[in-house]
Amino acid sequence: MSTAWKSRYALRTKDLKSSAIRELLKITQRPEVISFAGGLPAPDVFPLDRFQEACRRVLELNGHMALQYGASEGYEPLREMIARHIARYGINAKAENVLITSGSQQALDLIGKLFINAGDRILVEAPTYLGALQAFDVYGAEYVSVQSDQDGLRTEMLEEPLRSGPKFMYVLPNFQNPGGTTLSEGRRHQLVLLADKYGIPIVEDDPYGQLRYEGEHLQPLVVIDRENLRRDDGYSIGNVIYLSTFSKTLAPGLRLGWIVAPPDVIAKLVQLKQGADLHTSTFAQVVAYEVAKDNYLDDHVKLIRKVYRERRDVMLEALKKYFPAEVTWTHPQGGLFLWVTLPEGMDCNKLFQIALKENVAFVPGDCFYAKNGFTHEGHRHMRLNFSYGQPEQIREGVRRLATAIKQQMHEVQAAHV
Amino acid sequence: MSTAWKSRYALRTKDLKSSAIRELLKITQRPEVISFAGGLPAPDVFPLDRFQEACRRVLELNGHMALQYGASEGYEPLREMIARHIARYGINAKAENVLITSGSQQALDLIGKLFINAGDRILVEAPTYLGALQAFDVYGAEYVSVQSDQDGLRTEMLEEPLRSGPKFMYVLPNFQNPGGTTLSEGRRHQLVLLADKYGIPIVEDDPYGQLRYEGEHLQPLVVIDRENLRRDDGYSIGNVIYLSTFSKTLAPGLRLGWIVAPPDVIAKLVQLKQGADLHTSTFAQVVAYEVAKDNYLDDHVKLIRKVYRERRDVMLEALKKYFPAEVTWTHPQGGLFLWVTLPEGMDCNKLFQIALKENVAFVPGDCFYAKNGFTHEGHRHMRLNFSYGQPEQIREGVRRLATAIKQQMHEVQAAHV
Repeated sequence: MSTAWKSRYALRTKDLKSSAIRELLKITQRPEVISFAGGLPAPDVFPLDRFQEACRRVLELNGHMALQYGASEGYEPLREMIARHIARYGINAKAENVLITSGSQQALDLIGKLFINAGDRILVEAPTYLGALQAFDVYGAEYVSVQSDQDGLRTEMLEEPLRSGPKFMYVLPNFQNPGGTTLSEGRRHQLVLLADKYGIPIVEDDPYGQLRYEGEHLQPLVVIDRENLRRDDGYSIGNVIYLSTFSKTLAPGLRLGWIVAPPDVIAKLVQLKQGADLHTSTFAQVVAYEVAKDNYLDDHVKLIRKVYRERRDVMLEALKKYFPAEVTWTHPQGGLFLWVTLPEGMDCNKLFQIALKENVAFVPGDCFYAKNGFTHEGHRHMRLNFSYGQPEQIREGVRRLATAIKQQMHEVQAAHV
Repeated sequence: MSTAWKSRYALRTKDLKSSAIRELLKITQRPEVISFAGGLPAPDVFPLDRFQEACRRVLELNGHMALQYGASEGYEPLREMIARHIARYGINAKAENVLITSGSQQALDLIGKLFINAGDRILVEAPTYLGALQAFDVYGAEYVSVQSDQDGLRTEMLEEPLRSGPKFMYVLPNFQNPGGTTLSEGRRHQLVLLADKYGIPIVEDDPYGQLRYEGEHLQPLVVIDRENLRRDDGYSIGNVIYLSTFSKTLAPGLRLGWIVAPPDVIAKLVQLKQGADLHTSTFAQVVAYEVAKDNYLDDHVKLIRKVYRERRDVMLEALKKYFPAEVTWTHPQGGLFLWVTLPEGMDCNKLFQIALKENVAFVPGDCFYAKNGFTHEGHRHMRLNFSYGQPEQIREGVRRLATAIKQQMHEVQAAHV
């Protein structure tokens, strides 16, 4: 059917690119497929009883408020709780530094809306979070990609890209999606100093920071920024905007994330938020507060860490057992993902088709590179999620994937003979 | 504090204009103020017991799903329910025509994102819904305003504006916000025919359609479009995109709205939705479905109609009793608002200050006009909400407002002597 709408799409929608992955993820939902493709938390750790009790109390004591319109900034007690909570990591924020968003994805969208003019370049890691590219693309972002290794963004390669004047840097220092890598302490300091030297601010995306399974907690960039640069104005938030979410610690179905930023930035974001969806679900916010309060969330996160650490270890063991020696992978200290590198000549998009026949799925690597960001690199990579499946599924899935890999390696070798 | 962010705002954020009204609404939240300013549903009609039962059941039977990530399109049973529901009004949609949004406001934002290039003109009513202007402004919309009267948009004035080639028309045919007016049947047909003649599609925003207190239901534009133009492709959705919401019938704190559109438009919107917030809260959607199902919502809407009709009548009576003869107002057949016109020379912005001293508040009319849309007209108007206050508060508020009006009329007359 042709309607008058079809010819009227705005220019910004010309290159929308999500559909390929959406289609891909749909295929992986067949019950016989073991999928390492999603980024789903394990539903078996959702604290259902606590949610039951929270809903009951909220509706009994606060129902009129919880179902009514609310402030665009978010539910005040929740903003205060988040400010208190992140203070433990040295982020000296107050409630007025915190904007509640409809998931971290909306935080990325609002940041794109507030800062990106068409043609602006954003400095990103290669690879980087696909959802950020989707959020920024629509505002006409171009990208400067800087390569990562096992210790995260290679800061020794940063000066030239920074001199080219990107609008901001977008980085995931902890257990990066998709790389599973963690930015080392030295590089964190270097990154913050370079950002200050060139006057290029940083968006620090930290959805997984609390899910560390080994090693010491490293200071967030937002804290290093304050300490290194001796900001002392009551807020610790200066050149770094910090993002996080309840999606990985409580439940993604609530769609609750937050932005920590200087007050002038928050004020602008609140105006954009109002135009975007008025405010995030009051009910979801009040229920999340009721669930998380009295330090319940801290205890709950300990449980999640235990479950995910075990699954990560099961996957690492299975990879070692089943994968050919030519294949390598990252060793994530936390988070939900690891990143596999295949030998030269392999192509993860083709491998995906072979793997599907083996009833196992992953996300091919090139989804995670910005347009001009070493996309050919992506062909040799895949992202594997280890949080969602049960241990026995993880083992079996890796075994199937190894079969698929060996099959493609065989084909590649045969073609070269 | 000055940060590197401050100089980096995108051009589109230059003219953000919501803050004045936000500040205004904050003042009106003082407990001694009777506020007709908000657009809040009456919390005393929220079906709290039904919500209790719905939450309990959802978490017991479907908790893992309800707290997990979901599809960007929305929760399938909810989309199907909406399709069934609107079919009763002749809107022959299927689930695949329905996208769940985070409130109607997000529907407006996504439509702006999908269709508006900077400089595109959108044809709007004068006055029109402020939230639509906020949503479209950020994409660089310009406006063509067409005046309304008691029967809604003056379609006899449409041809010239349509010839100027706006991107689309944005109209609220039922119990318009802020006008409280309803587009007459004859004008509905004329509007749809002219839209087809000039190839200019329509966004039909219908948040209040079910809240009719008198008179007969009139066909939505989306139905007239199909019937007049004999579209027969299984979908009745052609040149009209139809928006509605649960905010006025169930609870605004859920933030649940929807877009009904042709499949190709839905496909694009889903991609944008994914970048904007991945999807709307699964929990809110599943709970709303559980509350609304088995035709519960129909019965509940009957209760809302009864309560709001009474409050409308109380306000109309009070206006007649207390307001000076020179003041006129619309007689809404439904919805939440009515629109007051003051005599020449009066200024609602000044009146607002006087009214605040009398502890009563409203929204001054010029908020509801597009930049180039007869803003001077707005000075003589105010929007009054009648859904939120209890009857005795409505009476007392109108009495106070009458005092303020008389005071300003006196001042205006004194200045002319």
